[in-house]
Amino acid sequence: MELLEQRILKDGVVKAGNVLKVDSFLNHQIDIGLMNEIGKEFKRLFSDIEITKIFTIEASGIAIAAITAQYFGVPLVFAKKSRSINLEGSVYSTRIESFTHKRVYDVIVSKKYLSEDDKVLVIDDFLANGCAADGLIDLIDESGAALQGVGIVIEKGFQDGGRRLREKGIRVESLAIVDSMDDATGEIVFRH
Amino acid sequence: MELLEQRILKDGVVKAGNVLKVDSFLNHQIDIGLMNEIGKEFKRLFSDIEITKIFTIEASGIAIAAITAQYFGVPLVFAKKSRSINLEGSVYSTRIESFTHKRVYDVIVSKKYLSEDDKVLVIDDFLANGCAADGLIDLIDESGAALQGVGIVIEKGFQDGGRRLREKGIRVESLAIVDSMDDATGEIVFRH
Repeated sequence: MELLEQRILKDGVVKAGNVLKVDSFLNHQIDIGLMNEIGKEFKRLFSDIEITKIFTIEASGIAIAAITAQYFGVPLVFAKKSRSINLEGSVYSTRIESFTHKRVYDVIVSKKYLSEDDKVLVIDDFLANGCAADGLIDLIDESGAALQGVGIVIEKGFQDGGRRLREKGIRVESLAIVDSMDDATGEIVFRH
Repeated sequence: MELLEQRILKDGVVKAGNVLKVDSFLNHQIDIGLMNEIGKEFKRLFSDIEITKIFTIEASGIAIAAITAQYFGVPLVFAKKSRSINLEGSVYSTRIESFTHKRVYDVIVSKKYLSEDDKVLVIDDFLANGCAADGLIDLIDESGAALQGVGIVIEKGFQDGGRRLREKGIRVESLAIVDSMDDATGEIVFRH
């Protein structure tokens, strides 16, 4: 997605440890106009398949997924990083290791909001080693819902999450795939 | 807001301990059509004042705030519950006690995304004792930005957060104010 790649080149910052900071427009401050274009692009890419729910994980995927859900005309469900006393009762659960936060989370979704009747599109801001996507797919599998695809804003193509998911036959559409980046020079190379 | 009150009566569940569960449409599964109406209503209510940023806190406020930000045509910024290695550098910070999670959070926002030039509208799903709003207002005050108002989807009118904020002269617009609720009968009474 040209608009997104240009924005990453303009405002993204490469940091040591394979960190790409895009918090000026994607996951701390959020450019809603850009999110609208991202939402429309996901709808265009997945226009040929039926979707009944958009599914993401708190927190940084929520804004993107909410805006995207508008274009599909379906509800958004987000998986929660556990511990809420408001979520007693029956949930599907899994564990996700966070690259960003260097810790393991228990992640849950209420059984009421994913069922075997659902056709689910996973939306998230980043795909790197794929741990978050794996966790969301675990929850979808537990529920019996159908995974229709995974829509990612920025895929780190030099980590193996995208390859692993595609090898399993999962349809992954990433709006920008970074093949390499260099924190010394700031260079970012996209896959085309 | 009539549409919202009707939805709370239809799908809200009153639980012991002053808990109003609205996770079927507001903060776990999210009805995006309703969020669009909520966003339009916030825009109508705050149409007379200049807003340059929508500000909320992760996680349950983000979807509402993102959809609302569309109608104001301004960026969304969300405060983070600390600990991200992606947020090194200078941040404003405060502490918030969570009623829902029974714990204290360190909450931060990058200094880059709130400044003295900003005119800020706080958006959140719930206002109860006001701890989250107090924390967001602390961050705004630290930054030197102007607090233009607070937009809340559901205010628990029987807790003192709304009264405290209004007594400080802060403009608070709540789309539904629950004056009382009863977990034995399920009754919910709105203020009009």
